[in-house]
Amino acid sequence: MAKAPRRRGRPRSEKAQQAILDAATALLIEHGLDAVSMDELADLAGVSKATVYRWWPSKHALALDVLAVDWGAIRPPPRDTGTLRGDLRSILRPWVKVLPSRPYGAVIAALLAEAHMNPEFRALWRARFVDERRDPGRLALARAKERGEIPTGTDAELVLDLLYGAIYHRLLHGHGPMNERIVNAAIDIVLTGIAD
Amino acid sequence: MAKAPRRRGRPRSEKAQQAILDAATALLIEHGLDAVSMDELADLAGVSKATVYRWWPSKHALALDVLAVDWGAIRPPPRDTGTLRGDLRSILRPWVKVLPSRPYGAVIAALLAEAHMNPEFRALWRARFVDERRDPGRLALARAKERGEIPTGTDAELVLDLLYGAIYHRLLHGHGPMNERIVNAAIDIVLTGIAD
Repeated sequence: MAKAPRRRGRPRSEKAQQAILDAATALLIEHGLDAVSMDELADLAGVSKATVYRWWPSKHALALDVLAVDWGAIRPPPRDTGTLRGDLRSILRPWVKVLPSRPYGAVIAALLAEAHMNPEFRALWRARFVDERRDPGRLALARAKERGEIPTGTDAELVLDLLYGAIYHRLLHGHGPMNERIVNAAIDIVLTGIAD
Repeated sequence: MAKAPRRRGRPRSEKAQQAILDAATALLIEHGLDAVSMDELADLAGVSKATVYRWWPSKHALALDVLAVDWGAIRPPPRDTGTLRGDLRSILRPWVKVLPSRPYGAVIAALLAEAHMNPEFRALWRARFVDERRDPGRLALARAKERGEIPTGTDAELVLDLLYGAIYHRLLHGHGPMNERIVNAAIDIVLTGIAD
């Protein structure tokens, strides 16, 4: 018998992964991490629970990928705009714009709580979420130092923590709004503060 | 029969409350919010579970009071030092100094997760924790405006979010240290950034 022609489209495992991610996005983002079981996730994705566990060791690891896909799709890749102010705006504004659209604060709070309890998840969280989100800002600050736009001694990590910290603080504690106007004002204060 | 003389010392209910708070401090701070049951708390405090529930509707509400007592005891009351830099340092440095001594990040992450899921606890959390912690900073900024030290149009809430945000960000995400040197540097950047 002749070998069957290779099927078009993505391999089945990739489709299953995508179905799981889609189901997880719908359930986790809408209902929150604690309200959703792996059984419900597998049901909605149309796969077995074993299939989910083949790629993701826990709900929390899956939620991390949901967040990465969700934010990765919405945010345009940060550009080299030629100025630090422009770069930081291009990194932070699209992110801040998307935050109120879904209960991201609840998802991140649940992931943070898990990261503090579970060392294995903590390593995943640091690499896949914390560092990945900081890297564009780190690059922008390194370019600004090279251009002589900011002093070479500037503590880039602290600059990022002032900006990312203000955004996370409002997202997590929920005591005030975060929008483009406010993130622009935050960038202005910090850049004036580190100017030569 | 003559009326018995009034017993010295605190009334029994106050002693029970203190015993519960002490037990909760020991258990919650050492083992984390999710690892501790109300039964264990009541056992360690030597009271019934009903007694705990008489004053605290949940573990989370109790943890909030533990945090308030714990931080309230360590931090000296913020002083009017005559300058905004001095005031902010007197508010933030003792707090930052105490943060690494216990797993406060884990406790706060668990409380944040609960605040996002439970509207009743969220109201308690906002009033008892978020606003209470921000008020000394708000007062310091209001005094600085009155003295003409900073422009009256300064967005005080944003200034606080840059500083508190950076501290919470490192405490919760755990990607970098937070200490007196770093909090001083953060204050310097933000104050330079808002200077007239």
